[in-house]
Amino acid sequence: MPEELAVVEQILSANDRIASENHKLLERHGVLAVNIMASPGAGKTSLILRSIEGLRGRLRVGVIEGDVAGRVDADKVAETGSPVVQINTGGGCHLDAPQVSSALERLPLDEIDLLFIENVGNLICPTGFALGEHLNVMIAHVPEGDDKPIKYPGMFTVVDALILNKVDLMPYVDFSHEAFQTAFRALNARAPLFDVSCRTGEGIPAWMEWLQSQK
Amino acid sequence: MPEELAVVEQILSANDRIASENHKLLERHGVLAVNIMASPGAGKTSLILRSIEGLRGRLRVGVIEGDVAGRVDADKVAETGSPVVQINTGGGCHLDAPQVSSALERLPLDEIDLLFIENVGNLICPTGFALGEHLNVMIAHVPEGDDKPIKYPGMFTVVDALILNKVDLMPYVDFSHEAFQTAFRALNARAPLFDVSCRTGEGIPAWMEWLQSQK
Repeated sequence: MPEELAVVEQILSANDRIASENHKLLERHGVLAVNIMASPGAGKTSLILRSIEGLRGRLRVGVIEGDVAGRVDADKVAETGSPVVQINTGGGCHLDAPQVSSALERLPLDEIDLLFIENVGNLICPTGFALGEHLNVMIAHVPEGDDKPIKYPGMFTVVDALILNKVDLMPYVDFSHEAFQTAFRALNARAPLFDVSCRTGEGIPAWMEWLQSQK
Repeated sequence: MPEELAVVEQILSANDRIASENHKLLERHGVLAVNIMASPGAGKTSLILRSIEGLRGRLRVGVIEGDVAGRVDADKVAETGSPVVQINTGGGCHLDAPQVSSALERLPLDEIDLLFIENVGNLICPTGFALGEHLNVMIAHVPEGDDKPIKYPGMFTVVDALILNKVDLMPYVDFSHEAFQTAFRALNARAPLFDVSCRTGEGIPAWMEWLQSQK
């Protein structure tokens, strides 16, 4: 094996080992962990905020926020009263299992039923790195166009649920829901697709129902 | 130096060497190369199509299209009559200099004045890899939100021009132009900012004028 590939293999297997430890820790505390992946600005934090609101009194939510820089998102989550840890990756284009492991140490796991892990905004890199999550959820958004499953097939293929956000913008952009759905179904036959608008709240109840059914 | 870092250093320096060769080749043929970077769905191809149209009869445009998969964008460009080469990166999250080098071999460089290199949709990885370009241009888009310079500072810091696309969607989303501009200017004092809508054509003339002034 060339040296370069050997190093990549070592990094990935170390990541998988720690992801497996994270998973066991979450299981011991009865926490369902959901890895949220999307492009920058697709509405990851907005969906998490809507979900915290929708699940209030039913499931206790904790959040790990992953960003290259800043703590804009963590501050928004903190306002809801949910426990939140911000991870800054520096230049890193995805979260990895060691980062999540250190965030888990700082969360009150016995007071959490559901943990959202908001990954770095990126449609490519996050799929390669297990974090210890139970579910992988992707958010696409209407203004980014209906051709994303064709151009970025990897993430659409592996997700357990796909959310199409910003459906309230449908009248103002060129987006064919049929073309989007057809391209997605060519890659992934089983994951449910939820049309939502985090801005108006449209479609959020169906997503809430599915999420609760996974617990 | 740890083995892992040493390998990364080797990859980067090999990339830089080939980028420098690409640059010299472009210079010899009098081609100005513009690296276009953005999130997925920000409007990279739409801007290129608008620019080809706006420059018709003045500058001859060629295009390199970078995508993880598919040739949707290359097909759109080919319809304009401009020479275009599609690169598929497989799982790669950015273009690199060797890929651009092989694309340059397939382009009629003596019949091109301006070369757009459309990078993979990603706000993080492309900044680390020189391609041989003369200018780095980034497209942000209104629906992805005004906080992107805070969360993804790297790309905003290095670009020679920033385009804010989809300004026609401003009435339908929560976006503060002032907050966006302030956050961008904290990172980059000199790059011009162009507000455009590739959909309506608003703002395109100012961008065309700047681009021609760089030639």
